[in-house]
Amino acid sequence: MIERNFKLLTVVTESALENELTEVLDRLGASGYTIVNARGRGSRGVRDAGWSTSSNIRVEVICDALMAEKIADYLQEHFYRDYAMVVFVSDVGIMRPEKF
Amino acid sequence: MIERNFKLLTVVTESALENELTEVLDRLGASGYTIVNARGRGSRGVRDAGWSTSSNIRVEVICDALMAEKIADYLQEHFYRDYAMVVFVSDVGIMRPEKF
Amino acid sequence: MIERNFKLLTVVTESALENELTEVLDRLGASGYTIVNARGRGSRGVRDAGWSTSSNIRVEVICDALMAEKIADYLQEHFYRDYAMVVFVSDVGIMRPEKF
Repeated sequence: MIERNFKLLTVVTESALENELTEVLDRLGASGYTIVNARGRGSRGVRDAGWSTSSNIRVEVICDALMAEKIADYLQEHFYRDYAMVVFVSDVGIMRPEKF
Repeated sequence: MIERNFKLLTVVTESALENELTEVLDRLGASGYTIVNARGRGSRGVRDAGWSTSSNIRVEVICDALMAEKIADYLQEHFYRDYAMVVFVSDVGIMRPEKF
Repeated sequence: MIERNFKLLTVVTESALENELTEVLDRLGASGYTIVNARGRGSRGVRDAGWSTSSNIRVEVICDALMAEKIADYLQEHFYRDYAMVVFVSDVGIMRPEKF
């Protein structure tokens, strides 16, 4: 009932990027995402504004390994230089995998 | 100090299900759960209301593999057809495992 | 692009501990953390106040295995007896690992 071999990709970034990020996820073909408000401290990006105590979001996407790679590559190319952003990926088993 | 072989079961579903879901978790014997408010987009369930931009919750349960299977089976049987719901499971190591 | 062998350490605990906990993380050398507000039910700590329906936080730290062990040990020694606290660790791959 639980099927392995899926990925959970998590992006923690600035709240201001929410619309742009979800448009990117839609465009790349992600089947869905879950967003929660967050706060925190992290490495500063190149922008001086930094990240400390700023308003963040934590966005999760369940997908296969290929899509995870595709999303991660896109984010690295388009956002990583200019925004505070952390992306991490873990292995998950999911129920009803035909939804993804 | 960190003991492997536990499961982190995560349920993302409609906020309206919170009370019913936590009652189910209590009844099935889960030792606890963590809930955060979320938003997002996902596959529509059978119900027309769908899921888009609705208010969601993200519920986490730490348990052993047997309990994870039990909870997942119950949710699949009782909620999956009629509600927007995603369930995924990952492997975690926990501290002070005697609490679970 | 995704580099394996990192740890995601998650702490779920009482909101009242937020400042103390983030000071500990800074002091121990964590490169950052992400905090979300949470609620839930869990095993009661030694304190009578317990945990039920209290206001919680969920704090995530990405780090290497050594740092995860260091943080977990510190939390176990200094907080576990007196506070409602759950700590769990999972394996993650991260992008741009030079930030951590």
